[in-house]
Amino acid sequence: MNTADLTFAKRFDGITGSAIREILKLMGTPGMISFGGGNPASSALPEETVSRLCQKVLKENGKNILQYGTTEGYAPLRESLAPYLKRQFGFDAKPDDILPVSGSSQAMDLLCKALINPGDVILVENPTFLGNMQCMRLYQASVVPVESDEGGICIDKLEEAIVKHHPKMLYTIPTFQNPTGKTLAADRRPRIAALAEKYGFVVAEDDPYRDLRYSGIPLSSIKSYDKAGLVVFMGSFSKLISPGMRVGYIAAHPEILRKCIIGKQSADVHTATLNQAVVDAFFRENLLDGHVESICKSYGLQLKAMLEEISFFPAGTRYTRPEGGLFVWAELPEGINTTSLLMKAVERKVAYVPGTHFFAEGGHENTMRLNFSNSPVERIHEGMSILKQVILDAMQ
Amino acid sequence: MNTADLTFAKRFDGITGSAIREILKLMGTPGMISFGGGNPASSALPEETVSRLCQKVLKENGKNILQYGTTEGYAPLRESLAPYLKRQFGFDAKPDDILPVSGSSQAMDLLCKALINPGDVILVENPTFLGNMQCMRLYQASVVPVESDEGGICIDKLEEAIVKHHPKMLYTIPTFQNPTGKTLAADRRPRIAALAEKYGFVVAEDDPYRDLRYSGIPLSSIKSYDKAGLVVFMGSFSKLISPGMRVGYIAAHPEILRKCIIGKQSADVHTATLNQAVVDAFFRENLLDGHVESICKSYGLQLKAMLEEISFFPAGTRYTRPEGGLFVWAELPEGINTTSLLMKAVERKVAYVPGTHFFAEGGHENTMRLNFSNSPVERIHEGMSILKQVILDAMQ
Repeated sequence: MNTADLTFAKRFDGITGSAIREILKLMGTPGMISFGGGNPASSALPEETVSRLCQKVLKENGKNILQYGTTEGYAPLRESLAPYLKRQFGFDAKPDDILPVSGSSQAMDLLCKALINPGDVILVENPTFLGNMQCMRLYQASVVPVESDEGGICIDKLEEAIVKHHPKMLYTIPTFQNPTGKTLAADRRPRIAALAEKYGFVVAEDDPYRDLRYSGIPLSSIKSYDKAGLVVFMGSFSKLISPGMRVGYIAAHPEILRKCIIGKQSADVHTATLNQAVVDAFFRENLLDGHVESICKSYGLQLKAMLEEISFFPAGTRYTRPEGGLFVWAELPEGINTTSLLMKAVERKVAYVPGTHFFAEGGHENTMRLNFSNSPVERIHEGMSILKQVILDAMQ
Repeated sequence: MNTADLTFAKRFDGITGSAIREILKLMGTPGMISFGGGNPASSALPEETVSRLCQKVLKENGKNILQYGTTEGYAPLRESLAPYLKRQFGFDAKPDDILPVSGSSQAMDLLCKALINPGDVILVENPTFLGNMQCMRLYQASVVPVESDEGGICIDKLEEAIVKHHPKMLYTIPTFQNPTGKTLAADRRPRIAALAEKYGFVVAEDDPYRDLRYSGIPLSSIKSYDKAGLVVFMGSFSKLISPGMRVGYIAAHPEILRKCIIGKQSADVHTATLNQAVVDAFFRENLLDGHVESICKSYGLQLKAMLEEISFFPAGTRYTRPEGGLFVWAELPEGINTTSLLMKAVERKVAYVPGTHFFAEGGHENTMRLNFSNSPVERIHEGMSILKQVILDAMQ
């Protein structure tokens, strides 16, 4: 026998790899204006600070940092995270309730590992982050979309879906959602926590964009309303410091966290300690707030430029007006297929992600996700203007 | 409902967390002579070099290093690994056949994810590395032990088990095995590759200790005899540079590697690029060989000290005489229970891991794994002498 006859695990049936990551590979072409990724701006990546902090933490604590760490994570970082979570997200977590992980994708992976049997239902926003949908599918979950409106997931539709599907989990990105940029309305947040308690399911609250707010008022997390211990909060420093460093975290009830820790033991033993220590040093030196503030200043202008340009898109285009995050979501006039449009856009050196990939059941061929964080203002004007022309050409 | 009523995934049935990691937590007590972990010596951890290399790679390539990377890994590291694998392990792999991962535990996790359905049989050495057994069990594999002798896994017993159990995979640590320190005999290596081809299963060849050889002659990997593409090679820099950095790799046939890459997309997107770049810089600056040579010099003396002391253990003790790696394995006279002995040893400030945990089916209560890498020679003499006394006391 050879590999041609090899049978892979059933969890791979129908899984072909993240469409987005395959598209993103095409986007590395020189001169491309990419609205496609979810990448921070190059200027937002603090390589000099990270370099200095690497030196500092390795000098102060190098032997511990290079030795095996505990799966539970680097203790100083867990201590730094507790007051940060209280301040920014409005919930109490002791250091022991927090597990540093290798990016918030791992948070999702560990939570599915802890909870999901094949066939279990996970409710998701429609559309939602496709990377985590792939994760759910690798755990052979049945991914069921729930309708959203301008205020995020619709509570009545959610309750209907709960009653009908008996979900194990609801996965939600409540703030500046990926891909739509929408924010879950303040009054829906306690209601989701209450539904979890009433019907008995876990809420996976994925909130990596929350600190990137350019207007409006910050809202409390769903977790802050969690009385039953059923809301699991997943955070990340990918958008605030660096995605390449792969540091995120889970804050959860000890019962749930314990399973995540056991799952992590055999997933990667622990998250690289140097990376945890560098993030911790951002807290200890009080660098995070100032850094995020400077990022927000430019991202806000980039968002403004994108919203300005998108207002010139053909009549019938609908789009979101996010107060933060990285994405604007557009629904083009009916009949336009953004997947076939992409090839034409790429020829003219502009890229985006077709929206269909973010829908659990596909369809919605006329939608697209546009990222503004990774392009300077002039390039946004230029790229959006080309994109408008590409759309107009397609409409003829 | 609250968390008390939560049902976790079936994969956790019977999983209680790695016994070894729980034991290791007890071992942090000041003054403890720990033969318990698999930790490199503190003096073997190159914090100054890592600090310098962090600065260097962040200066040269900081924006790329902090940005999202590809799941496939940092291209320069893949290029550095190909000739290293040829030179040290004797097999050809193109950079595209190599996937950097977050420590070789992740290699095992991704391989199980790619291949294992619940109930599939994985054959393992008896005893074997318990961390990876936990991984297999979380994939609900049926873990079936195969007898070993001084030359590693017994080929006739292996073939019997293959015919009987139709395994999906054989997991083996061929060089300075964890926990026994045994090395698979040269003539058995091509035979294992041939059995995989004949019967159609994957060989997971886990070889993190290979470069830590203090005597004898290096052997070619099983992978070097792999004609069918069924041998997956898993390596690590945890023992050579730093476990805290979490950098390992998989070398495999593209069909298998592709599934591992898709599995990794939703596990942690990619391994932290800074960590990959630092390991790559060890290659580019030609630092690895010299560093490993200096490690081997001291570890060889530590092994010698441990073998000297163990020769004074009570009559009836049997033990391995490894040519490298981190571990000596001891079988005490019948009737001694190393689990109850451990408490007494810890009271006298000496720790080890009871051997029973390394057996798929438990038992073997009179065995223990002794690590020599993490204790200086004087401490090995002292600790082994105490341990001998603790055993003698227990025999009275």
